[in-house]
Order: sequence, then structure tokens, then C-alpha cells
Amino acid sequence: MIVEIVSTGTELLLGQIVNTNAPYLARKLNELGFDAVYQTTVGDNRRRMSNVLAIALERADIVITSGGLGPTQGDITKEVSAELLERQLQLHEPSVEHIRGFFQRRRLTMTNNNLRQAMMPDGAIVVTNHRGTAPGVIIEHNDKTIIHLPGPPMELEHMFEASILPYLTKRFGGQGVIISKVLRTFGIGESTLEERIRRFILAQKNPTIALLARSGEIHVRLTAKADSEPEASALIADLEASLREQINQYIFGIDEQSLEQVVGEELCRQKLSIALAESCTGGAATAKLTDVPGSSSYLIGSVVSYANRIKTEQVGVDAALLQEYGAVSPETATAMAQGIRSKFVTDIGVGITGIAGPGGSTPEKPVGLVYIAVAGPQGVVVEEEHFSGQRTAIKTRAVNSALDLLRRYLQTKN
Amino acid sequence: MIVEIVSTGTELLLGQIVNTNAPYLARKLNELGFDAVYQTTVGDNRRRMSNVLAIALERADIVITSGGLGPTQGDITKEVSAELLERQLQLHEPSVEHIRGFFQRRRLTMTNNNLRQAMMPDGAIVVTNHRGTAPGVIIEHNDKTIIHLPGPPMELEHMFEASILPYLTKRFGGQGVIISKVLRTFGIGESTLEERIRRFILAQKNPTIALLARSGEIHVRLTAKADSEPEASALIADLEASLREQINQYIFGIDEQSLEQVVGEELCRQKLSIALAESCTGGAATAKLTDVPGSSSYLIGSVVSYANRIKTEQVGVDAALLQEYGAVSPETATAMAQGIRSKFVTDIGVGITGIAGPGGSTPEKPVGLVYIAVAGPQGVVVEEEHFSGQRTAIKTRAVNSALDLLRRYLQTKN
Repeated sequence: MIVEIVSTGTELLLGQIVNTNAPYLARKLNELGFDAVYQTTVGDNRRRMSNVLAIALERADIVITSGGLGPTQGDITKEVSAELLERQLQLHEPSVEHIRGFFQRRRLTMTNNNLRQAMMPDGAIVVTNHRGTAPGVIIEHNDKTIIHLPGPPMELEHMFEASILPYLTKRFGGQGVIISKVLRTFGIGESTLEERIRRFILAQKNPTIALLARSGEIHVRLTAKADSEPEASALIADLEASLREQINQYIFGIDEQSLEQVVGEELCRQKLSIALAESCTGGAATAKLTDVPGSSSYLIGSVVSYANRIKTEQVGVDAALLQEYGAVSPETATAMAQGIRSKFVTDIGVGITGIAGPGGSTPEKPVGLVYIAVAGPQGVVVEEEHFSGQRTAIKTRAVNSALDLLRRYLQTKN
Repeated sequence: MIVEIVSTGTELLLGQIVNTNAPYLARKLNELGFDAVYQTTVGDNRRRMSNVLAIALERADIVITSGGLGPTQGDITKEVSAELLERQLQLHEPSVEHIRGFFQRRRLTMTNNNLRQAMMPDGAIVVTNHRGTAPGVIIEHNDKTIIHLPGPPMELEHMFEASILPYLTKRFGGQGVIISKVLRTFGIGESTLEERIRRFILAQKNPTIALLARSGEIHVRLTAKADSEPEASALIADLEASLREQINQYIFGIDEQSLEQVVGEELCRQKLSIALAESCTGGAATAKLTDVPGSSSYLIGSVVSYANRIKTEQVGVDAALLQEYGAVSPETATAMAQGIRSKFVTDIGVGITGIAGPGGSTPEKPVGLVYIAVAGPQGVVVEEEHFSGQRTAIKTRAVNSALDLLRRYLQTKN
């Protein structure tokens, strides 16, 4: 089955936002065994959108659009496709109720504009949007299928997983099986990693191997194609075992597992509580840890000690030590980890201090220098890091490195 | 002049990488006054690429491709377009020299594969690549122009700025000037905002008006086209004044200005210091405030008071009050704001408490309920919010709402 992904929206054409929906859909469709071989982007212009949809319906069996289902006059996707397929738009009562409920729960007033979102082409399958107001639409038209999804990635992704994926699988059945597994690594550069597993990359056929760099993490994606799931899984398991012989120490998780999830699971399993003292990361490490549902069972709290007086008064760093070694030093990072652990009465304490820039550096202490300390029942570890990039990139890298140090501390503990 | 951007590469079709070349080119072309109204992505497949290029040459005046100029057998862009335009490929000696030099400088051996990169269609203008081996290509064909650029963003962007931009300007002259200005709003829904400025949207012509929703912010983008910059700016200023009459209270910034920047500027200007006590946002509000360079001049620090005992011990919330009203209540939010302000000795204190979910809710206190308080020289304000979505979405919205409440507090102060 040939699929074309049509992204709509003038903001995409103007380059104001990067299109993440098309790669998401492409990945998912390819995993299902569909060939998503065309991607097209068109603005909120009736004539051009109609032409693009006509071409797509000619060369593809399934056309999936994103965007243009909103309440505004610029949201025209359903109108354009209904006209192209010569179908009338009708008010769809269950959608009206859904939208009304959405506004009521949020104590907001629904405007008449929002009723546009409940207008549906005759004969369409209406797909509930559990993350927003715009329902999705599936139209089966002769031997073609056209699917309209909302533009916001959060809504599109949830709708695809919850409704479109089951629909496609049920209607078109197995297209063979494609399975992917991602080995997520941290603490190794892309080219070094590539060299370590070079012979597997050169010999790749099925499974294929793809490397992907993402804010300090390198993801190794293995993709196998086979007639059945067990066969594909077996192919992946074989290759994974060989790769792990080369890079196992850097692999912190698989697939969607994040560093903060892995850390959270270790803390839960070992029944350890944690507190952090953050300077240059400004609370971002704690914010990341608390992205995990249930993190309140181990995360007691944190202090963002931006001013030095907060380091001494609220974290318990000795003023003389701070004076002697400076705020950005292994000694201060250690004292922050120990101080917050004792002050917040937790099993684990973390201290992070560094220079995020662009100001605040000295010749000895350049922008990007960060010290991270972990204190716990097994003593203290402290690491020195040198990051490059802009202020926010340095913060992100410091957060990820802190989580990884924490992971290694927790995993070597037992 | 209508432009189509054609991105090639199977890795794009598989969703393994996000396409940043198309938005880059779109942005640049629109700034130049060209209408880049179609974007298409196709894989390294001769038949499909040829069809895509044929359609593009029909509906656009200028077709710009990225990718497929490399040395491997999968790099076929020039071959496909040469065949489509019925031109022969010839070895281009200066390009051979350029590629040879590139390898020599890096002390690498050139393989015969690399000579593929020096094969050029008859009559093409060859464009030097200062960042890599693959030259770019411009083919003027009847009244159409087709431009092939290399895929790596670093190479593509440099080549575009250094060679393609001057070429387009010289050949097609000024396409007039296009200027955009974004009014960033917060605290108003997309459809309500649209209703307020409906008559301007319906009457839009030049400037045009586009609405864009982004994690709670609605951006109103005005784009004006004119012969000169002052004329375009004047058109925007007129419309902006009319729009501000309708929605001024929701506009917090323009263009790239973020809420945290605006808040930071107010704090600086008024010489106020600030501390936060965060529960459900887990430090994310402080992390956002510290994204701004120089924020250490006003941000003293924060406490993430995830456990109730931290709220009492470290923030100074009265245990009896916490017991009586619960952790998620306007009273506790207020006590957190006042407590952190007094404990950290700052001018402004902020308290955020809520239920990020998925657990922790009760019938009276559902997931998404958040209280935000700001305490300062002008007294205390506290707001109740109801957010929907996943845990991380609720956190993000709570952070943005806290920053906006802070902005309004600071701006009404004087």
C-alpha cells in the first residue's frame, strides 16, 4: 500500500516551524509495513491544497493529512477534501457534544467558530480527539482512503496510536512485519560509537542499523523485516547481543525509555529518596525527574541555589569552603550534594554547579564547565564536564549528564 | 515567482531525521519575496523522483532540490533531472580538481565514487561547495530554473547564502520586500482571539494575518509586502495599532520575545529580586526563568517542595494551614509565595501547587487543577487554573501561566 503524507499549514511553508508530524507518521507507517513514499506540504490555500490532494489520491492508496482542522477561517482541509470528493459537510452532533464538553470541563465558553470543527463530510468515519477539540476524519472513497488528522503533534500522535493504527491494521491487515528496537546510549560520541560497531554497520542488511544523535544521547535503531513478529524479534535479538558486546556500558535504556525513567525505576526498586541542589541548571534536573508519573514517591524536593547566600543558608554549604574554592568547583558540588542530602533528610543528594554563560566565566573557569556530585550511602562521586554551545544547550547537557551519573551511581551500588 | 522545494532522501521518508532544510529554504525564500508554496519529499527512487520533479516543473517557476548529490549509488538527483530535461552528464574538470583538493587537504584518499559528484548536466551552472565535496547545480531550462543543493544542512545553508541568494537576486531582481511581525499573546484561546479580531482577518489582504497556537501562547503574525522596507513597516504599524485596540492586554511580547524574557526585563527594570516555591511544576518555572542570560541578577533561588514536609520545613508553610486546606489550595499557594519570599529574603515570591497527574486527584481536586500565587510589595494575587492533557503538558501550561501572572503582577505594579 502506497501512502502519501500531506502536511498543511502556511506556517510550515513560511518555515516558521519545523515539520515533526511527517517524520512521526512516516516512522509509524514504515513500522507497520506501509510504504510512505511521498510527503507533501501545502499552505492554507484552497486551489493549491485541492491540487495537491488530487495528485496524492492518484499516486497513493492512502492519503494522510495533518493540520487545518481547527476552528478558524484558515482551517480548510475538510472543506477542500469534501469538495474534491464531491461530498457535503454536515454538522455531526456527537462531535458538537464532545467539543462542548471539552470547553465545559475547562470552564471556557465555546464560540460558534468551534462548530466548524464538528462539520463532517457525508459518509465519513469520525475519530474522537482525546487531546483536543478537532475530531479526525477517515473517508473511504472507491479504492482510496483519505485520513485527516489534527495538526498539534500531541493530538495527532495520540489519535494515530489510539485510532488510526488499529484502523489501518484491521482494514489492510499485515503488510509483513517490521519491528524496530532502539538502544539508547549516553556518554559516547557518534563517531566513536560508529567506529566501535563499524563492522556491523557495513554488513547490515536485515536488521538495518541507523544512528541518531539527540541532545547528548545517541540512539542505535535496529529495524528487522520478517513474515512474523517472532522471526523479526529473533533477528533483532541476535544483532542486539553482538552490539551489546561492544557498547553495553553506554546503553541506558531501550525504545522510549528516558534517563529520568531509568533513574526513577532504580530509586523505586532500591527504596531510596532523593533531593537536589541545583545552580547552573536552575531546577531543570528536578523538573526532568518530576516528568515521571509517581516521582513524588522518591523525590522529596530541591533547592535552586542561584545566589551564593542560598548555597550557604539553605543548602548548608560552608561559607569558608565556598570562599576558598569558589562556587564552581568539585568541592562546592560535593558540599551541595552532601548539604541537601542532610538538610532534606534523603538517601541521595545531588549537587550541580557550573557556568552556563554567556557571562560569568574566568580564564580558569570557562563557560560550559560544570561539576556534578552524587552523595549517598556508598559515598560521594563528583565529575567534571566541559560542554559547548549556547546557554540552554549547556543546561540541557548538564541535566542529562547529572541523570546519567545518578544512573551509574545507582546501578553500580548493588 | 512560484518556488517548489523538493527534499530527497529515503532517511526523510522513513522519518529517521527531521527535515530542517525545507524550513530553512522556505524562510530565506519568503524573506526574498519568493512564494515557496509547495514542499515535497521523495526518496532515492528514480521513477518517483522523476515524477515529482516533472510535477514541480509544471506548477513552479523555480524548483530547488536538496540531497542526492553524494558519491554513493543512492545519490541520483542529477541523473534524474538530466534525464528529465534531456541533457547529457559530462565530467566537469574544475569540480574534479575541487574534490581532489578537498581530500588532499584532509589527507584522505579520493575514491572513484567521488567522481560521480563531478558529473554535470550539459549547460549547467556549477556552484562551488565550500563546506563539502558535492558541487551545487543550476539549470536554466526554457522559462524554468532548477537548482540542486547538497543535503547536509551546513553545506546547503552556506551554498545558499554564498551563491544561490546572489544568483536569484541578480536574475530575478527584487521581488519587493516582505516583513513579518509577530504579536505574542497569552491567556486567550485561539477561537476567542479570532472572534475579537475577526473583521481584520476577514478584510486581510496586505498585511496578511495568521494565527498560530503554541503551548498556551497564540501568535498573531502580520506579514506585509511592499516595494520598500519603510512602506512595509508602515503597513504593519497601522494594522498592529488596530489589533492592539482589541487584544492589547493579552500581548506580552513581539517576535522572538519569550515570557521569561519579558518577566526578566521587568524585574531588572524595577530592581526586584525573586524566589519561587514550586510543587507540581517540579522546578520547571525556575528553569525557564534561568534560561535568560543574566537572570542571576534577580533570581535568588527556589525550593521544589514536592513532599509536604519540605513545604513546612523549607518554605515555612504553616502545618495547620496545610492540614486544613490541603496541599493543593489557594491558601497553600499563597503561603508558599509568602513563605519563600520571607525565607529567601526577596522582593517577590511565587508559589505553585497543583495536580499534574495521572495520580493524586480527588473528585474535588481533579488532575490539572493548579493554584499560582505571587506575593510582593503590592500584596498577594492567587489564580486558579484548570489544565488538560498529559502530565508534562500540564506542567508546561502551569509554568507558562505562572510566568504570565508574574508579568501581569509586575506590569500593573507601576
